[in-house]
Amino acid sequence: MEKDENFSEWFDRVLREAEIVDDRYPVKGFVVYRGWGYEIARRIASILEELLEEDGHQPVLFPTVIPEDAFRREAEHIAGFSGEVFWITHAGERRLERRLILRPTSETAIYPLFKLWIRSHADLPLKIHQTCTVYRYETKATRPLYRGREFLWNEAHTAHVDFEDAERQVKKGVEIYSKVFDKLCLSYLILRRPEFDKFAGAVYSIAFDTWNPDGKVNQIGTVHHLGENFARAFDVTYEDPTGRQRYASTTCYGLGISRTIAAVIAHHGDDHGLVLPPVIAPKQVVIVPIPMKGYEEAVAEYAVEVEGVLSEGGLRVILDDDPKRRPGEKFYKWEMFGIPVRVEIGPKEVEGRTLTLVRRDTLERCETPLDGAVEAIRVLFKEIEENLRERSWSRLRSEIGEASNLEELRRLMEERRIVRVNWCGSDECAERMKEEVAGEIRGMRWDEEETPTGPCIACGGEALYVVYVSRAY
Amino acid sequence: MEKDENFSEWFDRVLREAEIVDDRYPVKGFVVYRGWGYEIARRIASILEELLEEDGHQPVLFPTVIPEDAFRREAEHIAGFSGEVFWITHAGERRLERRLILRPTSETAIYPLFKLWIRSHADLPLKIHQTCTVYRYETKATRPLYRGREFLWNEAHTAHVDFEDAERQVKKGVEIYSKVFDKLCLSYLILRRPEFDKFAGAVYSIAFDTWNPDGKVNQIGTVHHLGENFARAFDVTYEDPTGRQRYASTTCYGLGISRTIAAVIAHHGDDHGLVLPPVIAPKQVVIVPIPMKGYEEAVAEYAVEVEGVLSEGGLRVILDDDPKRRPGEKFYKWEMFGIPVRVEIGPKEVEGRTLTLVRRDTLERCETPLDGAVEAIRVLFKEIEENLRERSWSRLRSEIGEASNLEELRRLMEERRIVRVNWCGSDECAERMKEEVAGEIRGMRWDEEETPTGPCIACGGEALYVVYVSRAY
Repeated sequence: MEKDENFSEWFDRVLREAEIVDDRYPVKGFVVYRGWGYEIARRIASILEELLEEDGHQPVLFPTVIPEDAFRREAEHIAGFSGEVFWITHAGERRLERRLILRPTSETAIYPLFKLWIRSHADLPLKIHQTCTVYRYETKATRPLYRGREFLWNEAHTAHVDFEDAERQVKKGVEIYSKVFDKLCLSYLILRRPEFDKFAGAVYSIAFDTWNPDGKVNQIGTVHHLGENFARAFDVTYEDPTGRQRYASTTCYGLGISRTIAAVIAHHGDDHGLVLPPVIAPKQVVIVPIPMKGYEEAVAEYAVEVEGVLSEGGLRVILDDDPKRRPGEKFYKWEMFGIPVRVEIGPKEVEGRTLTLVRRDTLERCETPLDGAVEAIRVLFKEIEENLRERSWSRLRSEIGEASNLEELRRLMEERRIVRVNWCGSDECAERMKEEVAGEIRGMRWDEEETPTGPCIACGGEALYVVYVSRAY
Repeated sequence: MEKDENFSEWFDRVLREAEIVDDRYPVKGFVVYRGWGYEIARRIASILEELLEEDGHQPVLFPTVIPEDAFRREAEHIAGFSGEVFWITHAGERRLERRLILRPTSETAIYPLFKLWIRSHADLPLKIHQTCTVYRYETKATRPLYRGREFLWNEAHTAHVDFEDAERQVKKGVEIYSKVFDKLCLSYLILRRPEFDKFAGAVYSIAFDTWNPDGKVNQIGTVHHLGENFARAFDVTYEDPTGRQRYASTTCYGLGISRTIAAVIAHHGDDHGLVLPPVIAPKQVVIVPIPMKGYEEAVAEYAVEVEGVLSEGGLRVILDDDPKRRPGEKFYKWEMFGIPVRVEIGPKEVEGRTLTLVRRDTLERCETPLDGAVEAIRVLFKEIEENLRERSWSRLRSEIGEASNLEELRRLMEERRIVRVNWCGSDECAERMKEEVAGEIRGMRWDEEETPTGPCIACGGEALYVVYVSRAY
């Protein structure tokens, strides 16, 4: 099964064989998270939740439904989302007086409560977050984890005394998301989206885009400064220290858990299947006994002893001692599931009281004494993480090309690269790139200043920005 | 604020002041879980999830929507739920070809996948669980946490080779739920529901009912044996060892997280507010410095030191050193939030390197040296748990009365008790109790055999069961 030859087929097979999601649910665009996949989702969510809560975000859970009138309050927001919401019109035998939508994102659910919770400057900043599913009636082709009509994410919403404080929170949000992706060993570009592609209702939007083997970038997180737009629409005001009523400044940010799982699979996986960073692996170590005639009992006993030692040491361990399957079959299975380290135990290991370790990312083997094995495996985890991170970043660097005219851009887009170009900032030139070479302007670097060194690639006029162009999910 | 005088008002105030849920969301029957409440919900879910996963249940997440045709497959099920489902009929500008419902429970979402996952007896038992929200268009009065149109629960679904193996799982389910409620120090009756009140599509249903201060029992969990009913409706078969195709036997069980939070509040709370068992308290210890002139700095420093020691010891601690509020205000606030132990620190404690501990359940005080304080607090936690558990069980026992004729039953129902009566088993007599004295038959003890000692309370005929009658949510 070759990942690079046919990514799409490889990806579907990994989803199925590693029990990530099942896409045979009988409603288009809705998938079932299976045991292994959902455990990974929970671990990603936990890493993020812990960082958000350290930064003072309270966990909340808002209703899944939003009444039509609240949804219609912010003009740009409704314009951006109304084409893709699911409508609940009836309940039991009755027609509802007020129609409800399934949340596509929760601003319009949350702001009516922000209005109640926020009275004075002492109530600010207010920061909340929730891990939940959201619903968008995608008309483009759906694809499990990348684009579904229901997806799993975490969304945070914050309110502040002024624009500047909200902007500090935007930076904090970017920092938190960077930390999450770093822990997952993922590479990414942090881009400020062009005006025409910002979140519906935002002052500006920042996004985390990452490469995908099929050349369509994957947006895994976004952070938005909403200015006073939503506060005005929902009348969210506070009394400042001088007694004056002022509008709050707000932000929101979302990290796509479904899409982040897709990125983990796509970046780290190989022809043997999934490769998981130890931090999110449901099981970090699999022990496979390799019995030989005359040593069956000794190997089995030692395997149980090893399992005890590693579990005691705080590792998530599974001992696969199923007598009906051969070691080779077990290797195949657990490589597919992406368990970071395999421990092989045969007569030689029993005798020397050692373990043979096989790391999943490189399939390299080494031996270590049982005494000190937990520490050795933890060191190996670090090496695996460093290797995965380095591979992912170096691939991102190699995906990025440069073009100084449309012909070069067309060629690089055909190679499915991410391309750096100079842009004048006009919608017309953006439109032209999209129509003539199928490239979308994803935005300009947010974390680093890049200055154009030549004219706009499309019109030849003065370039104001260096932007990244690619196909996208 | 007196809990016993006006439970309803007391409850609403605790929800609001302890930041459990906000019921001002602008859709009837839908509430917002706030920080403190949602943390409690997550901890309850975690306790349950851990027990389920130890027993081999895999965590999954199924879609929130179910297509109409799947929902209509099992005749009794649809009859039981169709009056209370929300219908999604449109998306974007389009009318959907197949209408979707919001899951009221997930059997009809899950069985189409069970059919795909189950091929052979080696695939059984299959056990999954999910923590999620479900939707029921309740026409009775809604009430936050007790009866909403959206509520938070965990549902488990299992498939087995035969009725007996499914029955073993039913017992396991009851055992797991009992453990959860025991950890939360809740008392309960385990009742087998009468035929007319079983889950739509079940062979039989077992329920956990608990007392409530207003006299309406609160069903916090149910466990159902589904026999082959759903397997036949969804054609879930497996090949047995002899090569024959057989229907699976299945079970499902749900624990209402929203209702369990309601029970925790209602059982353990007092006139000062919430009282939380330490195992689910978001913060288990609050440290309140009590500065006195000349000792401000010493008290502040020692408070930070104490916080460090207790946190290091693995306790969830909050140090409330807000200089703008007096200690009395802080006591009031954290009593409302139900933090199990308060640590008071003044000059005397600084000098003796001790802590004054105040336990939330009894408001009793004691002193302990800082050295060994973590252990002392853990012992106190155990005592608090034992006390809460004992109080809850003794209240349940005192709620239960006995009646041998309808007049006595009427009187006890007016006192809002739970009443043990003999019943012949006929629907007519059940109906009569409901109409004449407003008492619902909740069922017979499942965990203990009780033999009728007199005739049916309604018709005077031979009684087959001892049943418990009460008002109910």
